[in-house]
This record gives sequence, structure tokens and C-alpha cells, in this order.
Amino acid sequence: MKVAIIQYRVPSTYEEAVAKAISYVEEAARMGADVVLLPELFEGPYFCQVEDYANFKKAEARKYSKTLSTFQAVAKNNRVVLPVSFFEKDGNCYFNSLEMFDKDGRDLGLYRKSHIPTGACYEEKFYFAPGHTGFKVFSTAAGRIGCGICWDQWFPETHRILALKGAELLLFPTAIGSEPVLVRDSMPHWRNAMAGQAAANLIPLAASNRVGVEKAGNSEMTFLGSSFIADQHGEIVVSMDRAEEGIRLAEFDLPSIAEERYSWGVFRDRRVDLYRSLLSQGSSEMGGDDEGDEDRDGD
Amino acid sequence: MKVAIIQYRVPSTYEEAVAKAISYVEEAARMGADVVLLPELFEGPYFCQVEDYANFKKAEARKYSKTLSTFQAVAKNNRVVLPVSFFEKDGNCYFNSLEMFDKDGRDLGLYRKSHIPTGACYEEKFYFAPGHTGFKVFSTAAGRIGCGICWDQWFPETHRILALKGAELLLFPTAIGSEPVLVRDSMPHWRNAMAGQAAANLIPLAASNRVGVEKAGNSEMTFLGSSFIADQHGEIVVSMDRAEEGIRLAEFDLPSIAEERYSWGVFRDRRVDLYRSLLSQGSSEMGGDDEGDEDRDGD
Repeated sequence: MKVAIIQYRVPSTYEEAVAKAISYVEEAARMGADVVLLPELFEGPYFCQVEDYANFKKAEARKYSKTLSTFQAVAKNNRVVLPVSFFEKDGNCYFNSLEMFDKDGRDLGLYRKSHIPTGACYEEKFYFAPGHTGFKVFSTAAGRIGCGICWDQWFPETHRILALKGAELLLFPTAIGSEPVLVRDSMPHWRNAMAGQAAANLIPLAASNRVGVEKAGNSEMTFLGSSFIADQHGEIVVSMDRAEEGIRLAEFDLPSIAEERYSWGVFRDRRVDLYRSLLSQGSSEMGGDDEGDEDRDGD
Repeated sequence: MKVAIIQYRVPSTYEEAVAKAISYVEEAARMGADVVLLPELFEGPYFCQVEDYANFKKAEARKYSKTLSTFQAVAKNNRVVLPVSFFEKDGNCYFNSLEMFDKDGRDLGLYRKSHIPTGACYEEKFYFAPGHTGFKVFSTAAGRIGCGICWDQWFPETHRILALKGAELLLFPTAIGSEPVLVRDSMPHWRNAMAGQAAANLIPLAASNRVGVEKAGNSEMTFLGSSFIADQHGEIVVSMDRAEEGIRLAEFDLPSIAEERYSWGVFRDRRVDLYRSLLSQGSSEMGGDDEGDEDRDGD
């Protein structure tokens, strides 16, 4: 199974952005890719950089989406598994979504981003309702593929649930760049957090990010590229730099990795009887378990 | 807050092993350590390499443990926070346990290893009942410290629950070495899995392992050392090699790391409503949630 990551500067108009994405998918297919991962919201500039009501007009209803019908044909014509990140409108609700197309163009279903960030340059809570589709593993012609979207990648719960549902490969379309307020380089942090989940779950993982500078109003972001593929031990086997545009591939032997998963024993030895507090938001909301919660007199 | 990791060849007799551990703790204290991490079951050779009923005699009841009273005094005399890994007997049950002592020698309580491995050279299921203490964060004079024991480190649930309970530092006494049957080097995998949890939870993490070759019957293990300290971004800031003996320190500014934790927003954006399947052992035991489980006709 060959997976391709694609990293590039996203053009400013919808038409150019779609054309550039198609051309990369076609090239990746010629290179032998079975699965092709484009960046998050590749249909144009990352509009969540600012809060602007005008951007809601970019959203598409799934059923009538020009983006989805275009890329469904691209998947079929190029015989590749193709997850497509898009801005979804459903009635009066808006989501950061992903539609999965199989090699024959079959629509395998929808995932809506579960974890929604906010803060300077990542004003996603302004646009998107948190998804309730749950985490999705799609049974494709190239294997069982679990997909999250960008911020989902920071939550070990995402990868673990996808693993429990049988994922053999994890994909994360991404849009991450500079942090103008926090003023720090989140690149190594970003990679370490994800690679560690690949390692803990023994599942290869790929992330495609955009590069370049994008401006919106008085705001400016530099996307950090650094798209990568990690193997089932969390080793980064394919690494792109902070500025390059292009396609990179990695090949994985999924049946042999599945053997490693059961040999390593981590899915055998989980203690689901002790995990209840994962469903709480802090130390004091562990309702009913016996994990020795502290009361108000505690520290 | 200064944390010290200690890595060494464990002597074959209890007396020598305890004396060597004490001497390292004293040296770490002289170097300025507030918290000192010894390897797992440092009271002697890693007896779980083989299944041998004679080894049960090594276990100590908490209340009468010579090991615990010895190291309680060591903690107090050296003014260090000291987690002590030991083989615990409680009535007819045996556990792989850890007692936490504060700088003033106060006993802060017990943790029993939750995740128990088995397989060639790691026959822990033969000796230890899985612990039911739950994951523990100890409020010490040096900060809130969450402790797991060895195999616990491979489970993202461990780190996450300790994070939710307010941990500021994660410690893992460890005994990991060669894999004679799987025949692979698990060193990078081991580090990546843990460093990724430090990154995802924005909490520094330390692991102390032993080095050297140990024989038991016809079995032989080479411990892989490689003890390390990762910062809150999952970067390895202190790294020991596969053979060296010694002490290494790292200093962390816990209040500034706590600011990073809330600034980064991951504990704000968790979706506890979507995590129910973490309490299941596979894709089909998600009883009652609405995550679109597949039925027997699905794949």
C-alpha cells in the first residue's frame, strides 16, 4: 500500500486551487500512489485566519457540492483513495468536513471534524460546529483508513478510537502555521504529538500541510509545511521541509504491521475498567468510578 | 524543579542492589535534584525474565517492607521526592507497585501497576495481579507528579488520565531490554510512544531504565538503557546511551509549562461526548453510544 502526501502553496482563487490540487493528485497516481492526502481546506486560502461572515458563503451542501463531484471523478479517473477536506453547509449548520472516495469513485461517507480550535489565526469556532459523526474508519480498496482533520491530530483519543475501530493507516489533512500571539514554533511539537500516537497504536500516520504566507485583513500567517509520514514505531520515514512544494510517498506492508500490533500486546492489556475518567473534563467529574477522586478538601 | 534520571547495571544481590541505588540517590541529591527516578524493581535482577515460583518469596508487604523503610529514610535524609518501585505482597495477592515518598520522608501513597505485560522475558502476568488503585498523581513538595510503571508507559490512556488529574511531571521507572522472540530493537519505538504523550499533554516526562546483561536459567536479556527526559513538546532534552551508568538532570519551570497547557487549548477542546468507545476493547463493544458502530454485516 503506497500513500502519498502532498504539500504546496494554495492559490488564492477557487478555480486555481482546485486545478492545482487535481494536477498533484494525477501526478501522485502516476507515481503509483494508492492513497493520496491533500491538505485541509485546499479549495482556497485558510479563511479561518480571521472572523469574517462573508466566508460562510464558501460552504457547500454535500449533495450539491461542486468540489465533491469534481474530486469524486478525480479519484475514479486516477484509481486512488482520496479523502477530500471541505467546508460543509447542512441546513443552518456549518462543519469542517471530509468526504472519503474509494479508488472506483464510490463515496464511502462523511466525517465532521470533532475538535475545533480557536485563538489568533485559527478562528474555527467562529465558523464550524463541532462534528457529531464520531471518528471514522473507512474500508477502502487500499485498506482500512482512519481520518481526522488537523486539530483532531493533537488528541490521543482520536488515534486510539480509530485504532480500536480497526484502522490500518491514519490520515490528517492539516493547516498549521505561525502562532502570532504565542510566538513559538510549534513544528516539532506538532510532529512529536502525532508520531507518538502512531507509535502507541502501531499504525502508520500521514499529515499533509500547506506552505507559504497568506494574508487576510491585518493578519498574516506563514504555514509551516513539514508534512510527514511516520511508521508504526513513530519514526518519521518521509519528511518535507517548511517551504517545498511536492509529493512524497511511503509504502507500508499492512498485513505485517497488523501482526506487529497483536504481537506487541498493547490492545490485549488495556484496562478499560480504569479509563472512565477519560470521559470527564477534569479530576473532579469522574462520577461513580472508584479511582480515589479527591474531594474539595484535597489539593 | 530539577528531576534526575538514574541508569545502571543492577547488582545480583539485594544488599548490593539497595546500596548502589542509595549511593546514586545521594549523588543526585548533591547535584541538586528535587525528584529522583530509579529504575523499575531495582532491588535485584529483573526476575520476570522467567516464570519461577521461587521469586514470589522476594515480595514484601507494604507495612513491613525493609525496602520501603530504607528508602523512606533515604528520601528524608537527602531531601528528595523519591518514587520507589517494589514487588508487593498483600495477603495472597502480588503486585508490581510503587510507593511515593516526599522530601520530608512522608509516605504519599501507593500505586499498583495497571497494565501487565507477558511474553518471552516479560512474564509479569505470571507474578502480578493487575492493579486497581487507579492512576495516581502525588502532590509533592516539588510539584504534582504522576507515576506509571514501565508497560503503563505504552498506553496513552495512562498519561491522559494523569494529565486530567493535574500532573505536572510524569515519571516511569522501567525495565526494558531485548526481545528474543520478536527479534527487534524496540528502543526508538519505546521513546517515540512516550515522548508523544508528553507532547500531546504538554507535560514533561522522564523514564529510568537499567542496563547490562542479565541471565536467568536458559534465558538472557540485554537491557536497552536509553533513559531519557522529554520536555512538554516531546523533545528529548536528556538522553542516556544504551550502556552508560550514571545520573542526568533536567530542570523545568512548572508554572510556565502550566501556562502553555492552557494556552494550547487541548484540554479545552476535548470531546468527552465522543470518547465512550475508549472504554471498549474493540469496535463492537461500544454499548449505547451513537458513533455509528458497524453490525455483523459490516466489515
